[in-house]
Amino acid sequence: MPHSPEEKKRVLARVRRMRGQVEALERALEAGANCAPVLQQIAALRGAANGLMSEVLESHLREQFGQPARTAAERNERISEMTALVRSYLK
Amino acid sequence: MPHSPEEKKRVLARVRRMRGQVEALERALEAGANCAPVLQQIAALRGAANGLMSEVLESHLREQFGQPARTAAERNERISEMTALVRSYLK
Amino acid sequence: MPHSPEEKKRVLARVRRMRGQVEALERALEAGANCAPVLQQIAALRGAANGLMSEVLESHLREQFGQPARTAAERNERISEMTALVRSYLK
Amino acid sequence: MPHSPEEKKRVLARVRRMRGQVEALERALEAGANCAPVLQQIAALRGAANGLMSEVLESHLREQFGQPARTAAERNERISEMTALVRSYLK
Repeated sequence: MPHSPEEKKRVLARVRRMRGQVEALERALEAGANCAPVLQQIAALRGAANGLMSEVLESHLREQFGQPARTAAERNERISEMTALVRSYLK
Repeated sequence: MPHSPEEKKRVLARVRRMRGQVEALERALEAGANCAPVLQQIAALRGAANGLMSEVLESHLREQFGQPARTAAERNERISEMTALVRSYLK
Repeated sequence: MPHSPEEKKRVLARVRRMRGQVEALERALEAGANCAPVLQQIAALRGAANGLMSEVLESHLREQFGQPARTAAERNERISEMTALVRSYLK
Repeated sequence: MPHSPEEKKRVLARVRRMRGQVEALERALEAGANCAPVLQQIAALRGAANGLMSEVLESHLREQFGQPARTAAERNERISEMTALVRSYLK
């Protein structure tokens, strides 16, 4: 999950933005903000989680298949691992 | 969105737990953790966002319909607002 | 779930459109269509399911809260039922 | 999207089950069934759509990466296509 420095920078920027979103949400809930804007903030955070998940999966895909496997067994193992991740997180 | 003190306490506990989840995720990404557990952490955070969204909507429902409306117009307005929220966040 | 004739007509129109979508998807899979357009068809069907779910919930909300409850107990019961539905289907 | 005969058989079985679910839902809505079981039927259909989407993506993954690419360009093209699909359908 480190992969290229650019990818790492990108996912860290995303997760830090999410931290800011959670902190703003906490302040809004403490201040007793109205329901509608609070729901909007939660939905934005959920969207950010989906975006990060996709970024992480894409980066893993590039790492796993960006270099040819040395053996058919290795290729099959990579495919099994990737299909298991797709199955778990495609929701 | 303040509603009862118990409800407020409950949503604040949820959002603070989410802050802890985001911070743990940030540390994992900084440390270059493996893809599979990182995805699991993101999925847990997304689940927590859904849980908080539901809690906020339920609390709003109780507030809006827990007391009888004084007029039919007020009743209809509450219903319109609530159906709009359901339409936006039922995803 | 019958509610007004207009609402019934609207949900039936939605579910029939969904039947058409499933049939088109079946033909595409039988014909060995490409992966990308097949995924698009499935995503459209999933979107239609979300739309129908929202329509049904909104209609239920209007039915449950469109008339004042006769007693506080009745009002509370309606609220409990509705919050349980929101909790189950807000995904 | 045809891939192996077993995979084709499996996705066709899924889509036919979904057709049955849509038809049962249509009958329930025509008969004016209660809201809660109708929502349950819709949620089951949505779950089936997610399952089919995952099956189709997994099968595509096996097809795209099950044989070594002949060139680096071909390998990169396969990866780009797959990451685009993951980005679109991971929701």
